[in-house]
Amino acid sequence: ETLTSFFGWNREINFGNCCPPDVVVWPRSVEEVSALAKICHHHCLPIIPFGTGTGLEGGVGAVEGGVCFSLRNMDRVLDVHQEDFDVTVEPGVTRKALNSYLRDTGLWFPVDPGADASLCGMAATSASGTNAVRYGTMRENVLNLEVVLADGTIIHTAGRGRRTRKTSAGYNLTNLFVGSEGTLGLITKTTLRLYGVPEAMVSAVCTFPSVQAAVDSTVQVLQAGVPIARIEFLDDVMIDACNRFNSLSYPVAPTLFLEFHGSEKSLEEQVTVTEEITRDNSGSDFNWARDAETRGRLWKARHDAWYAALALRPGCKAYSTDVCVPLSHLPQIIVETKEDLVLNRLTGPIAGHVGDGNFHCIMVMDPNDQDEVTRVQEFTERLARRALALDGTCTGEHGVGLGKRALLREEMGPMAIEVMQGLKATLDPKNLMNPGKVL
Amino acid sequence: ETLTSFFGWNREINFGNCCPPDVVVWPRSVEEVSALAKICHHHCLPIIPFGTGTGLEGGVGAVEGGVCFSLRNMDRVLDVHQEDFDVTVEPGVTRKALNSYLRDTGLWFPVDPGADASLCGMAATSASGTNAVRYGTMRENVLNLEVVLADGTIIHTAGRGRRTRKTSAGYNLTNLFVGSEGTLGLITKTTLRLYGVPEAMVSAVCTFPSVQAAVDSTVQVLQAGVPIARIEFLDDVMIDACNRFNSLSYPVAPTLFLEFHGSEKSLEEQVTVTEEITRDNSGSDFNWARDAETRGRLWKARHDAWYAALALRPGCKAYSTDVCVPLSHLPQIIVETKEDLVLNRLTGPIAGHVGDGNFHCIMVMDPNDQDEVTRVQEFTERLARRALALDGTCTGEHGVGLGKRALLREEMGPMAIEVMQGLKATLDPKNLMNPGKVL
Repeated sequence: ETLTSFFGWNREINFGNCCPPDVVVWPRSVEEVSALAKICHHHCLPIIPFGTGTGLEGGVGAVEGGVCFSLRNMDRVLDVHQEDFDVTVEPGVTRKALNSYLRDTGLWFPVDPGADASLCGMAATSASGTNAVRYGTMRENVLNLEVVLADGTIIHTAGRGRRTRKTSAGYNLTNLFVGSEGTLGLITKTTLRLYGVPEAMVSAVCTFPSVQAAVDSTVQVLQAGVPIARIEFLDDVMIDACNRFNSLSYPVAPTLFLEFHGSEKSLEEQVTVTEEITRDNSGSDFNWARDAETRGRLWKARHDAWYAALALRPGCKAYSTDVCVPLSHLPQIIVETKEDLVLNRLTGPIAGHVGDGNFHCIMVMDPNDQDEVTRVQEFTERLARRALALDGTCTGEHGVGLGKRALLREEMGPMAIEVMQGLKATLDPKNLMNPGKVL
Repeated sequence: ETLTSFFGWNREINFGNCCPPDVVVWPRSVEEVSALAKICHHHCLPIIPFGTGTGLEGGVGAVEGGVCFSLRNMDRVLDVHQEDFDVTVEPGVTRKALNSYLRDTGLWFPVDPGADASLCGMAATSASGTNAVRYGTMRENVLNLEVVLADGTIIHTAGRGRRTRKTSAGYNLTNLFVGSEGTLGLITKTTLRLYGVPEAMVSAVCTFPSVQAAVDSTVQVLQAGVPIARIEFLDDVMIDACNRFNSLSYPVAPTLFLEFHGSEKSLEEQVTVTEEITRDNSGSDFNWARDAETRGRLWKARHDAWYAALALRPGCKAYSTDVCVPLSHLPQIIVETKEDLVLNRLTGPIAGHVGDGNFHCIMVMDPNDQDEVTRVQEFTERLARRALALDGTCTGEHGVGLGKRALLREEMGPMAIEVMQGLKATLDPKNLMNPGKVL
């Protein structure tokens, strides 16, 4: 087991070096997870769930030592129900592994955070990504969870084996555990909603004279009811980095990467409406990616944004911010944030899921330059507060982890935090589940 | 204040006559709600939130007496954000009132349980209805809630004033309160997601030789990715009742009521694909409802199902069941349920949101015939257990209320129930919030 991911830089930047766990265990079944949890509970040892370690907020760091539960050996895809559009997976199953498993069924699981993350981990962190605008986040796509609580108790959040598309039966435990970042229990099975693979897909790139023009286009596309699958914003700095890293030659300007899913006919209409809107907002002609290979190259460029950003300054490290605001506030916050970056001599290309109001500055910095590191820390706090002032959140999809606990308090207010603390104390009175995270 | 809805028959059938509250208060602001809650808390008086009283599971009954908080005087629509597709409403605002208020914005709120319910009440009961297949339930459409807790504390489940389309900030308090049926707190504001009014809508009716054929068509329509807005099943008994009640003349056979939303072009394609599928499943030609008036008549017939069922046996009362199963189990459970109805000489026309796997038997019975009432009670338990045996739930959208607490235990298992009880005890240690409901 490699422990590198325990030392994720996103964490390090805020908290210095991280302590590894005292022990790593690799259970093979929920019964083993439960038995191990009981031992930890008896001896008051912290429990740190570990999927793929691809999270960005230090969620797998063992800040108080304890036992890391690596769940990668529980890697079965269970119960694909084609007619019901659902599947159940164990924590070792990643997003790509599931979609590869589903290849012959005509179904897929669309939520795509970029990394090839564990699906149970994605549930734990309430992940989303580029196509949440069409398919929703994990919140909307998890039907049931099997969870091992701090004392080893096994529960099924919607009842054992249940997988209805909707239910009003009791409190929504499923969505209490989705996004709880391992602090309330270990997720050992996730039942997911699946979707039919679209008949056709087409991607395009469109360049704009301003951030405002790109965001206005997005709002109008959504208002027109275009069921757009992906609508990603990249600022001039980001597109420049992508050009360099992936040998592309897009104009260096505010840019939208778009993707449409549907039948051939529906694509035609979606594209026509969208082109009309972008043209009205002084967007360029669409640069098309029609075949699978070209589309793959385009989205690889988007998903490689992190590495493209890093390549801007060899030897540096990166940290990603993650604010989300109502759509109408996006132009203001992006423009102000770009000014802030320039003013403080920081490298922070911007990429974002603009259809959701969520964007990331990928902060590239020299870890040995303490002054720069401090400027990045101060910048990220200013950015989060700017989002909070605009009805937004300090985390659209990466979670709170270690670094945003103070911001979470500001965002929620003391009373809501007290409620969260009460829930945590009820489910984990000894504070053993992933201690030091979220609250 | 009329108290009739306190005596909803759905409740009565299971529990005999209901006790009215000791006092009814009509607060005009969240501050007044909070102050009144503090008084109740101090004197250990039960608090029963009341919106429109349209719930079907006795949620507003004051089984332990106490104070009914009628929230109808808090009836402001606040903060319509057109560009951001969101709105905030107080508890006195009903679904129809909101949509009428939004008329000139090009936006609407689609969740439609039939009754003109309070939107905060719909949040409290996790309501859905005929178009959840396209737009989701309240779970997917509530962005934030203002809640007064049992001790009078005011919280905002996503932080005060926040309304982002997604967030990973801390525990998902919003969806803990959505569907909590007033047992965790009083909802005093709900921030909702809005949608663009579709350019065009068209409805159709299609008749099938069997339940299986109707359900197969539904599964195939969903599999084909048709973004159908409504797909409602009515069995032969139900369609017969609707024909009589609304002077219609649809063939008396398993029937689908369909609705398509989108652009003109997209409708054309949706309809073509759907017609092809229904024809392959031996469905009849579509009986069209194109203009607003005809569509209105069609959906009025569907929404009048309750009254149409009652009209089958004048002087009788009705009780609606509410199970939900995975789509593939629908034909089996509907066929077995119809056999059960015949065997036990019961009147129970079936209508359902077949795209979600959710259906209702509207049980019509003579309240003075104790034998029949007993047979209905036994039937509804058998039906719920049949759903539970097929990976389903005892309530897809009506909630647990008073009558399904025992079934909820069977559905969730003792450990998950214990977790729910723990959450309840944390948020409402004196058990004052709508006592006797859900758990």
